[in-house]
Amino acid sequence: MEFTINQIAALLGGEVQGNGNEKITMLAKIQDARKGQLAFLSNPKYEQYIYTTQASVVIVKKDFTARKELSTNLILVDDPYSSFTALLEEYHKMVSFQKSGIEQPSFIGENTSVGANIYRGAFSYIGANVKIGDNVKIHPHVYVGDNVTIGSNSILHSGVKLYTDTKIGSNCVIHAGAVLGSDGFGFAPQADGTYKTIPQMGSVTVEDNVTIGANTVIDCATLFGDSTIVRQGVKLDNLIQIAHNVEVGKNTVIAAQAGISGSTKVGENCVIAGQVGIAGHITIANNTSIGAQSGISKSIKEEGQKLLGYPVLDIKQYFRSYAVFKQLPELNYRLLAVEKKLAEE
Amino acid sequence: MEFTINQIAALLGGEVQGNGNEKITMLAKIQDARKGQLAFLSNPKYEQYIYTTQASVVIVKKDFTARKELSTNLILVDDPYSSFTALLEEYHKMVSFQKSGIEQPSFIGENTSVGANIYRGAFSYIGANVKIGDNVKIHPHVYVGDNVTIGSNSILHSGVKLYTDTKIGSNCVIHAGAVLGSDGFGFAPQADGTYKTIPQMGSVTVEDNVTIGANTVIDCATLFGDSTIVRQGVKLDNLIQIAHNVEVGKNTVIAAQAGISGSTKVGENCVIAGQVGIAGHITIANNTSIGAQSGISKSIKEEGQKLLGYPVLDIKQYFRSYAVFKQLPELNYRLLAVEKKLAEE
Amino acid sequence: MEFTINQIAALLGGEVQGNGNEKITMLAKIQDARKGQLAFLSNPKYEQYIYTTQASVVIVKKDFTARKELSTNLILVDDPYSSFTALLEEYHKMVSFQKSGIEQPSFIGENTSVGANIYRGAFSYIGANVKIGDNVKIHPHVYVGDNVTIGSNSILHSGVKLYTDTKIGSNCVIHAGAVLGSDGFGFAPQADGTYKTIPQMGSVTVEDNVTIGANTVIDCATLFGDSTIVRQGVKLDNLIQIAHNVEVGKNTVIAAQAGISGSTKVGENCVIAGQVGIAGHITIANNTSIGAQSGISKSIKEEGQKLLGYPVLDIKQYFRSYAVFKQLPELNYRLLAVEKKLAEE
Repeated sequence: MEFTINQIAALLGGEVQGNGNEKITMLAKIQDARKGQLAFLSNPKYEQYIYTTQASVVIVKKDFTARKELSTNLILVDDPYSSFTALLEEYHKMVSFQKSGIEQPSFIGENTSVGANIYRGAFSYIGANVKIGDNVKIHPHVYVGDNVTIGSNSILHSGVKLYTDTKIGSNCVIHAGAVLGSDGFGFAPQADGTYKTIPQMGSVTVEDNVTIGANTVIDCATLFGDSTIVRQGVKLDNLIQIAHNVEVGKNTVIAAQAGISGSTKVGENCVIAGQVGIAGHITIANNTSIGAQSGISKSIKEEGQKLLGYPVLDIKQYFRSYAVFKQLPELNYRLLAVEKKLAEE
Repeated sequence: MEFTINQIAALLGGEVQGNGNEKITMLAKIQDARKGQLAFLSNPKYEQYIYTTQASVVIVKKDFTARKELSTNLILVDDPYSSFTALLEEYHKMVSFQKSGIEQPSFIGENTSVGANIYRGAFSYIGANVKIGDNVKIHPHVYVGDNVTIGSNSILHSGVKLYTDTKIGSNCVIHAGAVLGSDGFGFAPQADGTYKTIPQMGSVTVEDNVTIGANTVIDCATLFGDSTIVRQGVKLDNLIQIAHNVEVGKNTVIAAQAGISGSTKVGENCVIAGQVGIAGHITIANNTSIGAQSGISKSIKEEGQKLLGYPVLDIKQYFRSYAVFKQLPELNYRLLAVEKKLAEE
Repeated sequence: MEFTINQIAALLGGEVQGNGNEKITMLAKIQDARKGQLAFLSNPKYEQYIYTTQASVVIVKKDFTARKELSTNLILVDDPYSSFTALLEEYHKMVSFQKSGIEQPSFIGENTSVGANIYRGAFSYIGANVKIGDNVKIHPHVYVGDNVTIGSNSILHSGVKLYTDTKIGSNCVIHAGAVLGSDGFGFAPQADGTYKTIPQMGSVTVEDNVTIGANTVIDCATLFGDSTIVRQGVKLDNLIQIAHNVEVGKNTVIAAQAGISGSTKVGENCVIAGQVGIAGHITIANNTSIGAQSGISKSIKEEGQKLLGYPVLDIKQYFRSYAVFKQLPELNYRLLAVEKKLAEE
């Protein structure tokens, strides 16, 4: 990808100072940038770097006046930070959707339909009766089981595995090694101490604009026709466990290594920190915020709480109790002293 | 797969009311079922649905009498729920073992023997000197290292990796992305602060009827001839860590994201909840039940205990102590009040 | 691999008793060894086994005198344990680097250079503009994105995934299913409750002599030119989460299922136990030791501490407080008794 400074300035509605025909291939920080790269200057603290940067162009505020000689070109805009962020997003999108076409060998089953402009990496496997939208990027070693559907503009990174019947929405990103649709963990204890497997016949449904982190696992629902559901806008980090029949509400964010047990329903706009564990068959109210490593064993019914501990308490209550916990040996001695004094009276 | 209602009734020892020649291709819940599907009615609460269901046939109790007109066929049996469960298991087995034959490209090494009716998915890799039993299903992207043995009727889902010398029993199910036989975490500290790798030369042995969840990892044993062992009937959930030289006893169930450190021996029929951590070089007695997120740092010698906490306590003791923990600030104030009163006397 | 007893004795500077021409193909424990295998006797407790072992040769101390007849050959050395360990390491290295050549089908992109004596397993994928050193072993199903560099003598086990721009040093071992370079977990909350993805444009840098466990995930840095960094000699166990912009210092060891949040800097020679969670944007001093399942929410500034708890305390303080925690119900009753007595006065 290569653009001239003039093209970028036009995109940003900015004004060029210097040679607008120079070519830009990448974005960089002002202190690191090299020839062919674009940087920005927003925080005055970094002004020193503009006089030494090797960037081919720097985005600056309209009213910027150089106090020394400049060897870089400039693009003058209203808000350099926003302009840079906009370019970054545009660039990121271009990089993410850059690959297209079919690398060989790759495998595709019968009755499978794929949209326009898709990428199928080498060693990717797509089963039978699969429906894939436009502009979907299926990286090498991805496994797509039979009867799966994938909405447009979704990206499946290397080694993602989708069991049969999984449904993925549009604009989703699934990172390497994530597994969707593995059997729910359901076993019925028998009289002789063994366990009988409860057939797991449901599937996984992921709505639009969802991100799923690397090596995260989402189990399928137990019953025919049921789904474990990840609602639109949900962001899941790496190495998360989502058990069978769970529902994660709209725009909820879950950090790495958290785990949600079977049939639990997490509300919308929750923020669940890393390594949190949530028991099965409970509900978590909307806008709940759960601190790292907390354990939730009962339903959270009141919205908007900040919780911490095991089992969770209100976060302030937890810290107040923990402050005393640290002094428990002293507290015990104090009580002994009191008891002694009373005994002596 | 397609059966007539008559065939299914014969299998269940039930009696057909209606057109026994209609064809059934799938099972479903009575409220969701469509034409060509079979449902059941057990709980009277759901009776309303039998009058509106689109199922081609519903399994009902022998003494069922319709109070309105029915548009579905019936199979009359003694216990509709058990009959449905039996069909579900049969169907699940058929689906699980449906695939057979060899998809291309796939890789197979020298001196490797495979049984009858196996499935080798595209991009599956089977090394040299491997022995694979009958009816084994090796899904796409599975890696089977040299000298591995796999018993009959075992299923390896997409992307399972078995390092060299791994032994898998019969009737096992290993879910996508699970890794068996990676190096144990053994490093000897050196005088200069670096670590020297202790060669990990052992293997992993998984006995019969074991289920292993997605992205779970089981390390190999350290010494030649030794194995990390998962005994028969064990059920492991997703994202679990089983370190080198661990032994997990018969019919023990471990939930997601739990971790067991090196050389620990877990007894039979234990139930270990999610995110539990167990230290190395200890033993856990049979029938021990460990609550979610607990930490075990010492051997558990008495069988049948229910434990919780960090380090674990008896579960009731933990909750009693935690009840006071919540009130620690008040308890501290109460003690201060007592001290003040005594000082005033 | 096959050596004569004479060859092994020469390597160890030891003296042969018996038939030096017998061939050895493997190492084993003295109680398990079979014909063609080599064992050692160091601990006198095991002397009994030397009279019954089927090993073809046993390494013994120079001054060893048999008290019964021996059917095995001997190699006499100064320190049998060290000699055996040295052989074990040599053997392990040979096994680890045994494979070479290219299995088909495998994929390699344009402008990619590979060193001498490398192994590229079937279904391995190597992108464009990749640089791979000598003696690198790339097992089946490995994914190497564009612009990656890999130093010499590094081993990538089956299913490792390296996103574009990842840098791996020399003498590294990365176990099956590990993911390096997945997107950092960065999302900017919007007024309507949705989240906007912050483009993750950086990479991952792993220095020399690093081991990374199975299914561990290391996210890329956020900004262009930045890296999440794993310094030389670091040992990471399985299922670990290393978030974006983290730096793990030289010779630090981290056990399974631990997680480190974004932008945190862990010092050198730290020992972090299993399931530990470390918050983002903090620093951990050199030589810090953190007990299993602990949570670190603030920077640790003093070097050499041993910590435990949530949030962490000095380990002795934690256990002293926890000892009282166990007795909290009794402590509460004692306080009630004191209060009652005072009220009665």
